[in-house]
Amino acid sequence: MATIFTKIINGELPCYKVAEDDKHIAFLDISPLKFGHVLAVPKNEVDYIFDLADEDLAALTIFSKKVAKAMGEILSCSRIGVAVIGLEVPHTHVHLIPINNVGDINFSNPKAVIEADKMTTLAGEISTAFEKL
Amino acid sequence: MATIFTKIINGELPCYKVAEDDKHIAFLDISPLKFGHVLAVPKNEVDYIFDLADEDLAALTIFSKKVAKAMGEILSCSRIGVAVIGLEVPHTHVHLIPINNVGDINFSNPKAVIEADKMTTLAGEISTAFEKL
Repeated sequence: MATIFTKIINGELPCYKVAEDDKHIAFLDISPLKFGHVLAVPKNEVDYIFDLADEDLAALTIFSKKVAKAMGEILSCSRIGVAVIGLEVPHTHVHLIPINNVGDINFSNPKAVIEADKMTTLAGEISTAFEKL
Repeated sequence: MATIFTKIINGELPCYKVAEDDKHIAFLDISPLKFGHVLAVPKNEVDYIFDLADEDLAALTIFSKKVAKAMGEILSCSRIGVAVIGLEVPHTHVHLIPINNVGDINFSNPKAVIEADKMTTLAGEISTAFEKL
């Protein structure tokens, strides 16, 4: 059965898309730890990140870097933190999270609730910054 | 001034080394979130991971994958999680953390205290597994 991320990639489910290329997509996490929390996902449905072939892992990381650069231009934060957990959705995804202190990456924290129009606006701003890179 | 990681790389400070190649080193975190928590570090002293050149970022990720594979052979865990925070030591480092649930990556958690002889034994076991990959 296709993962929720594959359904997003195939257009069967909506997302707040911030970036896309031939092999990857990135969109706002709808249960964000912080305003501006993004997931970067390879279109190839592989569960565990370290089962990706070296070249695919490298490409995902370089895509994530470009997304993080776009996020950094739009969001107010010290830097973009990275986390890969992978115990819930069986499809590799890189969490890119705007952080100001080490406690900001804690998946036990309550999730932020952000209005749909703010998510749409933010996704558009990051997407525009990404396209200019 | 050289970072603490550069001092480790230069042999001026000790570490529980688990892997090394021309451009990278990996060693046990001495304040681990979990038994077997490793840091993978590029020898080039760059503060923010996303300031690494694409090829250096790709190489760090592929090195981290190999270290994670070795860890997975030795440690009992669901998988190896990844985190990059970077707010404390100004030298890029990838946290590779054996995880069983999403709460395992939380830098606010108390750190594990592990005896030196257990750290030495574990580092040796991961190092041996790494060399065989």
